[in-house]
Amino acid sequence: MWVEPCPDFNPGNPLFVCILANTGTAKIPRISAAGKSPELTDYTPAADAELVETGNAISITEPAMCPSGAPTPAVLTRASMLLTSIPCLFINAGLNIKPKIPFIDLNAQPGGDIRKGQAVADVGGIYKRSVSLGKKLSRLSDLVIIGESVPGGTTTAMAVMRALGYDGRVSSSFPDNPLGLKDAVVNEGMRRAGLSFGSLKHEPLRAVECLGDPMMAAAAGLVDGLDTKIILAGGTQMVSVLSIIKALNLKRDVSIATTCYVASDTTANFREMVEILGYQAFTADPGFGSARFRGLRMYESGDVKEGVGAGGAMLAAAMMGFSQEEFREKVEEVCESIFSSGGRK
Amino acid sequence: MWVEPCPDFNPGNPLFVCILANTGTAKIPRISAAGKSPELTDYTPAADAELVETGNAISITEPAMCPSGAPTPAVLTRASMLLTSIPCLFINAGLNIKPKIPFIDLNAQPGGDIRKGQAVADVGGIYKRSVSLGKKLSRLSDLVIIGESVPGGTTTAMAVMRALGYDGRVSSSFPDNPLGLKDAVVNEGMRRAGLSFGSLKHEPLRAVECLGDPMMAAAAGLVDGLDTKIILAGGTQMVSVLSIIKALNLKRDVSIATTCYVASDTTANFREMVEILGYQAFTADPGFGSARFRGLRMYESGDVKEGVGAGGAMLAAAMMGFSQEEFREKVEEVCESIFSSGGRK
Repeated sequence: MWVEPCPDFNPGNPLFVCILANTGTAKIPRISAAGKSPELTDYTPAADAELVETGNAISITEPAMCPSGAPTPAVLTRASMLLTSIPCLFINAGLNIKPKIPFIDLNAQPGGDIRKGQAVADVGGIYKRSVSLGKKLSRLSDLVIIGESVPGGTTTAMAVMRALGYDGRVSSSFPDNPLGLKDAVVNEGMRRAGLSFGSLKHEPLRAVECLGDPMMAAAAGLVDGLDTKIILAGGTQMVSVLSIIKALNLKRDVSIATTCYVASDTTANFREMVEILGYQAFTADPGFGSARFRGLRMYESGDVKEGVGAGGAMLAAAMMGFSQEEFREKVEEVCESIFSSGGRK
Repeated sequence: MWVEPCPDFNPGNPLFVCILANTGTAKIPRISAAGKSPELTDYTPAADAELVETGNAISITEPAMCPSGAPTPAVLTRASMLLTSIPCLFINAGLNIKPKIPFIDLNAQPGGDIRKGQAVADVGGIYKRSVSLGKKLSRLSDLVIIGESVPGGTTTAMAVMRALGYDGRVSSSFPDNPLGLKDAVVNEGMRRAGLSFGSLKHEPLRAVECLGDPMMAAAAGLVDGLDTKIILAGGTQMVSVLSIIKALNLKRDVSIATTCYVASDTTANFREMVEILGYQAFTADPGFGSARFRGLRMYESGDVKEGVGAGGAMLAAAMMGFSQEEFREKVEEVCESIFSSGGRK
């Protein structure tokens, strides 16, 4: 099944936005596979944005692959943008390395290491500026799809959900989800911030401040400002944003879209969490089992699962009438042009 | 007459963008009134953007006035945005001081001092990124109004028009236009770059590189990327952009809108230049002769003439059905809230 359930809306002016941020949390060894080394995670959001926009990850010299050799999910997002011609705006919500393409700057600092219990500076300011941006975008679009590229973001997602009182088990960019490590990091952050499970259920922005990342403040603010149909495009990181907007009691037309890889990840509980929170979830399957590129077939074994709004980008392609085959073919073309000298079997 | 000629189009999704840049040229003593001192011109674009967006020029501590005491034209632009609810996106095309509101970053460096004959770094890159932004905005809007806030920009405008073979006499933010000084600055830049009148008429981007400012590359690139109706909102600075896009042979639906103050400035030749270049010009008169605020009445004596797309913002208000009186009343309200403790007679 390509996209489930089949989307029954057909927007006039869809817009894709992708929120980018770095955090100190991503630099904890072995926590993120979104970069060849912890320090290189700084380059991942910029390179993802550049790849979606230009087909070339300008800020990095090596092929845009995860350590396993699977290509970044940015190739899926680029394929969808090429097929659908939906405009994609990138938002800098706190980057150490800025993409060499146009982006919207929210004047946010990169997030810290949540083990310190003080992760995001100026949460209120980021939220407020993002509300104002959302209001503007509302006048230009009737459907806004919000993706993200935040290395280390599943750990901050887990931490915030815990503080809000949810046992949000999160997915990973690694085939073997380092849940024990994430658990230890989250526990240390909660201890340092003096928090316990659910203790901030009525203060979601305080949870982001202590244990989250700046993307969350930006995404929640956007949702607040938008009066369009909204699709959060992502896996467990966007589930944490759902938990925040629910705690903020924002009544908006929001659903979530992710890949089949996140939805079927048994180390995480995506479907359960979305159901508990009371939102609609879409899942998309690119059918990579029959892909020509070996790196894409690796998605089937859980080497990469989601990112850069790939699931929402697939939903957008489906919504605009493209089939799974057309989408996969376009992804292969994108890979061909990026990895023309290797990666193929 | 409020707006002349009366606009005969009614857009569905208008968008206002304002391109911001700093230059070394603005720091030549006595060249720009857009800032209390040459060094303070660095703060002017950021403060203008903040004022339009929030009603508060966050980055400066003093009231947002020109040295004469007249308020920045940003108050006119804010009034129009409040009346019309048109979304306004700010573009950083090379700032030393960035606004504390969301903005689109084009990854451009501030311009240099044109006396050195080498004014804009990476003109081609700015142009290309701006084309890509324009293509995206085309999918979100059917009318894009492009304003600017670039202190010192009339001098770079004059220089580029000369290099392209036009005797573009330019306006000024001072009541007494320092044309002799501008002339000397332009001549020095042309000499250093080895250029003469019209010598770059087939190389407009080279003219921007030697003698222009980064806003010009950004504005021309946007026009190239847009397939919407386009209105350049500004005086002689936007005339120079018209001369660039004409030299680039871009066939787009472009017109220009400015204030009656620029159009009637006899030290400049706005109308003549627009006619020579072959575009349509709109002029807007806010009727400030009967304004309550003394600072607004000062516009009538040429203390401030244009900026932050004020003329195009007025055209937008007229296009959306607001009268001169309604507009002026809103400007007074904006001034009241900003300058509530002074500036009133």
